[in-house]
Amino acid sequence: MRVRLDLRYTDYDSRGHVNNAVFLTYFEIARHRAWRVLTGLTADFPFIVLEAAVRYHSQARFGDRLAVDIAVTEVRTKAWVWSYRVIETRDERLVAEGHTVQVMFDYDAQRTIPIPDVIRTNLTTTVKGA
Amino acid sequence: MRVRLDLRYTDYDSRGHVNNAVFLTYFEIARHRAWRVLTGLTADFPFIVLEAAVRYHSQARFGDRLAVDIAVTEVRTKAWVWSYRVIETRDERLVAEGHTVQVMFDYDAQRTIPIPDVIRTNLTTTVKGA
Amino acid sequence: MRVRLDLRYTDYDSRGHVNNAVFLTYFEIARHRAWRVLTGLTADFPFIVLEAAVRYHSQARFGDRLAVDIAVTEVRTKAWVWSYRVIETRDERLVAEGHTVQVMFDYDAQRTIPIPDVIRTNLTTTVKGA
Amino acid sequence: MRVRLDLRYTDYDSRGHVNNAVFLTYFEIARHRAWRVLTGLTADFPFIVLEAAVRYHSQARFGDRLAVDIAVTEVRTKAWVWSYRVIETRDERLVAEGHTVQVMFDYDAQRTIPIPDVIRTNLTTTVKGA
Repeated sequence: MRVRLDLRYTDYDSRGHVNNAVFLTYFEIARHRAWRVLTGLTADFPFIVLEAAVRYHSQARFGDRLAVDIAVTEVRTKAWVWSYRVIETRDERLVAEGHTVQVMFDYDAQRTIPIPDVIRTNLTTTVKGA
Repeated sequence: MRVRLDLRYTDYDSRGHVNNAVFLTYFEIARHRAWRVLTGLTADFPFIVLEAAVRYHSQARFGDRLAVDIAVTEVRTKAWVWSYRVIETRDERLVAEGHTVQVMFDYDAQRTIPIPDVIRTNLTTTVKGA
Repeated sequence: MRVRLDLRYTDYDSRGHVNNAVFLTYFEIARHRAWRVLTGLTADFPFIVLEAAVRYHSQARFGDRLAVDIAVTEVRTKAWVWSYRVIETRDERLVAEGHTVQVMFDYDAQRTIPIPDVIRTNLTTTVKGA
Repeated sequence: MRVRLDLRYTDYDSRGHVNNAVFLTYFEIARHRAWRVLTGLTADFPFIVLEAAVRYHSQARFGDRLAVDIAVTEVRTKAWVWSYRVIETRDERLVAEGHTVQVMFDYDAQRTIPIPDVIRTNLTTTVKGA
């Protein structure tokens, strides 16, 4: 699934390229979009991020047009992995890639929970379909 | 009251100076510090911002050391005004100034309320003492 | 001119509504878009913000769909005014409004300059057309 | 080396805890401080981040007091590794940990370069001293 990004002027640092920390925000934009598409749920997100990693391949400069290709690449009992590739869309240049591990979380009870079946099915289908 | 700022690399834009929007965050840092000092309260803040204005006087560049001078400059029934001056502290250069108007807000009831007497006293004393 | 906003999860604060400082970033997104449309220029922006002001009318909550209506409302020798209305687009509710004053700036010479004629014409046409 | 953080209200998301992306900014604050202490250099930073990773251990909530413990944990020809632990300082609770790999970068020539000897010595001493 490809999610187009609206870059903001504040994403750039004094070198004129997108600051390294902003890529985790780009990942977040992509997974929130993917979550809504996969589940149809519109409430605040019932999961919590356990791990995040990014590898930077090329600088994103002023005027670049970026998108994130996001895919579910692993599903466990309570957690799953989303993988991301940030692409400059005019030349398909790879800007950055990475992944996050997140776990289903019951915010009221403040504890992790198994992935509900209906969501598991959607996440798993996505893995197989990738 | 002077509040020293810890500038972040992400505060700078591609021109190498602090982005204009960040000054409202600097104002926020200052008023949250001032609120805690004035009231001793540590919960989330029981007011809401109605207006904000900034005038930019000089560019804040990489390496500048900034602080905010904050003062209560008006107290009304439900609302009050905080005024701010952002200063480069090595040469007392004025970088920006502005104000915010905020109103006491009951977030549970979702409505504005009068400033409680104990807080009014503290805010008013500050105006007189300025 | 209406500019649709892609809200980010990081725009929300712990109260679940868009932080007050973020509105200056929304204004910036709108004026950068408007500048490109008006002038066709794609380089970094040759102006600097002198003043900014916001009035907050209603809270922008999780799930709201926001856009900015932006218009040039005054043109001076070196400076001009952009006015903004942030709208929830499903019910046309007014969320915030404000303006910025910016001046043409020669970043190499580090001084303000008059608005070039070709740009002045475009800005002025926009005022009349509003 | 321990670097105290000034948390900002905008660091919190609608769940009332520090947003996951902000931790890369906390790492950045720490490494910029560490770089200045190690090298005495005050110009913009002559390196570029290649990789970043974070593991989240506990939620950072409103009112928490955070610091980053930063250490150089590996030095290569052109690149080195900084490791980070974000700590709540009142109870020494581990909030997050991670690392970044960065490489010396000549921004004028737009290419990577070997770590200069004087900087290598400082980085290596830090590793041994850890």
